[in-house]
Amino acid sequence: MEPRHRFLRACLGLETDRTPIWIMRQAGRYLPEYMETRRQAGDFLALCKNPELAARVTLQPIERFGLDAAILFSDILVIPEAMGMPLRFGVGEGPILDPPVRSAQDIANLRGNPEERLEYVYNAIRLIREGLGETTPLIGFSGSPWTLATYMVEGGSSKHFSRIKGMLYDRPDLLQDLLDRLAEAVTGYLNAQIRHGVQAVQIFDTWGGILGHDVFLQFSLESMKKIVKGLDRVGPDGQRVPVILFAKGCGTHLESMIATGCDVVGLDWTTPIDAARRQAGGRVALQGNMDPAVLQASPGRIRQEAEKVLRAYGPHSGHVFNLGHGVTPDCTPESVAALVEAVQGFDRGSLIP
Amino acid sequence: MEPRHRFLRACLGLETDRTPIWIMRQAGRYLPEYMETRRQAGDFLALCKNPELAARVTLQPIERFGLDAAILFSDILVIPEAMGMPLRFGVGEGPILDPPVRSAQDIANLRGNPEERLEYVYNAIRLIREGLGETTPLIGFSGSPWTLATYMVEGGSSKHFSRIKGMLYDRPDLLQDLLDRLAEAVTGYLNAQIRHGVQAVQIFDTWGGILGHDVFLQFSLESMKKIVKGLDRVGPDGQRVPVILFAKGCGTHLESMIATGCDVVGLDWTTPIDAARRQAGGRVALQGNMDPAVLQASPGRIRQEAEKVLRAYGPHSGHVFNLGHGVTPDCTPESVAALVEAVQGFDRGSLIP
Repeated sequence: MEPRHRFLRACLGLETDRTPIWIMRQAGRYLPEYMETRRQAGDFLALCKNPELAARVTLQPIERFGLDAAILFSDILVIPEAMGMPLRFGVGEGPILDPPVRSAQDIANLRGNPEERLEYVYNAIRLIREGLGETTPLIGFSGSPWTLATYMVEGGSSKHFSRIKGMLYDRPDLLQDLLDRLAEAVTGYLNAQIRHGVQAVQIFDTWGGILGHDVFLQFSLESMKKIVKGLDRVGPDGQRVPVILFAKGCGTHLESMIATGCDVVGLDWTTPIDAARRQAGGRVALQGNMDPAVLQASPGRIRQEAEKVLRAYGPHSGHVFNLGHGVTPDCTPESVAALVEAVQGFDRGSLIP
Repeated sequence: MEPRHRFLRACLGLETDRTPIWIMRQAGRYLPEYMETRRQAGDFLALCKNPELAARVTLQPIERFGLDAAILFSDILVIPEAMGMPLRFGVGEGPILDPPVRSAQDIANLRGNPEERLEYVYNAIRLIREGLGETTPLIGFSGSPWTLATYMVEGGSSKHFSRIKGMLYDRPDLLQDLLDRLAEAVTGYLNAQIRHGVQAVQIFDTWGGILGHDVFLQFSLESMKKIVKGLDRVGPDGQRVPVILFAKGCGTHLESMIATGCDVVGLDWTTPIDAARRQAGGRVALQGNMDPAVLQASPGRIRQEAEKVLRAYGPHSGHVFNLGHGVTPDCTPESVAALVEAVQGFDRGSLIP
């Protein structure tokens, strides 16, 4: 069954009336109403775990900007937590998973089927869908196994990723075991999200870009492929559920990402979108790819840069406008409004087919 | 005049008896003797400014490992400091340039010809050359104009680079003025290093990788090209001085880097060196590109990974072995020793020409 929503249509490479736009981290710290709700929740993790408030912040940018898709407000680290790792967010420090996973025993101790302990996410999904009605589709998401593993082995964010890369080179068997468990967990989790009503899913491989080509294929891409294969690609409403793969800093691995079987590849801003479109050759749709830093510029300049991306993609179907990475906390809602207006008001008639 | 040293020969694409190796940040915190000298100096900046101690730490890894080239111990931010910006290194915070450069007036206030105020660097070069004798060549270096500008405009390290990218998109004229001044300063500085005895120079574009393709060409590559053109390519000893260009995260811009007129392109570990060599087609030599994180692995595994890079490059001339980025503080001298031994002891006869 062909979807009606322009976002879902674009993901599947179908014709649309105009290019849809959503923005990674659109429910975030640059929005005063988000900051207000977060204060109410207490902290970031409490906000993720409160279905009413998580639903509220998910809807805020839709109400303010009229974006073409909503994305579930949550965090990729709810999976390691549901596998038994104590998670906290230190003030200004980023996430901390303590104790980290380092040994075969640590890995064996991880709890299976974490998706069964994430009811609060599914409750949020139900509330968000009620809030959105039929006008705007909802995207679910998860971190990739490799990206989740970096946090689990390093015990949080990292600069050099020495621990997990040490494991990769010295104990690839251990790492593979961890990645296999995560691939299974992520598949189960995304399928549960789909059952509860998300209409598309995105896999974030935030740290795939720190790997060389061969090890990226082996330790990051392979487990994403497994997930793509294991997903229920048709939702409870009978509509196809597009899968978006976003790997930051992975422009040199584009061909392998296209070949995973996903529907959409998300590009960061270092890959020229015109060349990527030619390479994709209709096999996948593309999402992206304006530099988030453009939002630091004036509204006029934001419009120019947005139009540059739209012109670079050209008059073809299969484009979802987005930034090349999440919107940063230091930009203003006015800048985001200027971007949304530029994309939604763009005259596609000006493109020569 | 053809150089004798295998490092200089490899940079110029000439035949060598074996693949030379040096390591970015080889004089660094992983070495106990470096930590000892740094304590003696007081702090990092004091160490950079003390020619005797800077020379001592430059020589330490040569004495310990017998590397094929030494690199001047210094910091890229001595240039902004010599242009009048107060520089300090906060404990665990990275460099701080305060006040930062943000306005036309700030840029106009920068002092020209900073190379005239960097005598301590030239004194260190003289002492290092005395210490090295004729057996090991010395590499000088500078940050690229774009990379220096990021620190100067952000006021230090940055996560999102919002300030300088805001300037790039909104006031490209201002940024261009700053880059022009820096290109002139870096040219003067590297030429002074060459006059005082460095036998090769490397330009580090640490932050080129945060730019999209078009803006990388315009705001980073163009000023590096100007520098390459303006360098004295023959040293006081009548020998050719190779220029190495290293831009991290710039695998997608490889062709443009090859075309700058440099002698060597440094690769990070995300670009496959075999494909890069075919693309270079003898126009430049290549430096790199083992993942620094391999040094977290066991000696046996380090050897395997080093040999993988050597085999990937193959039996061609024009390869300088290096890591794809600086050695990290958390590795051991024993790991570095294992790497150097693997590269220097590699049997090139095993490569089929």
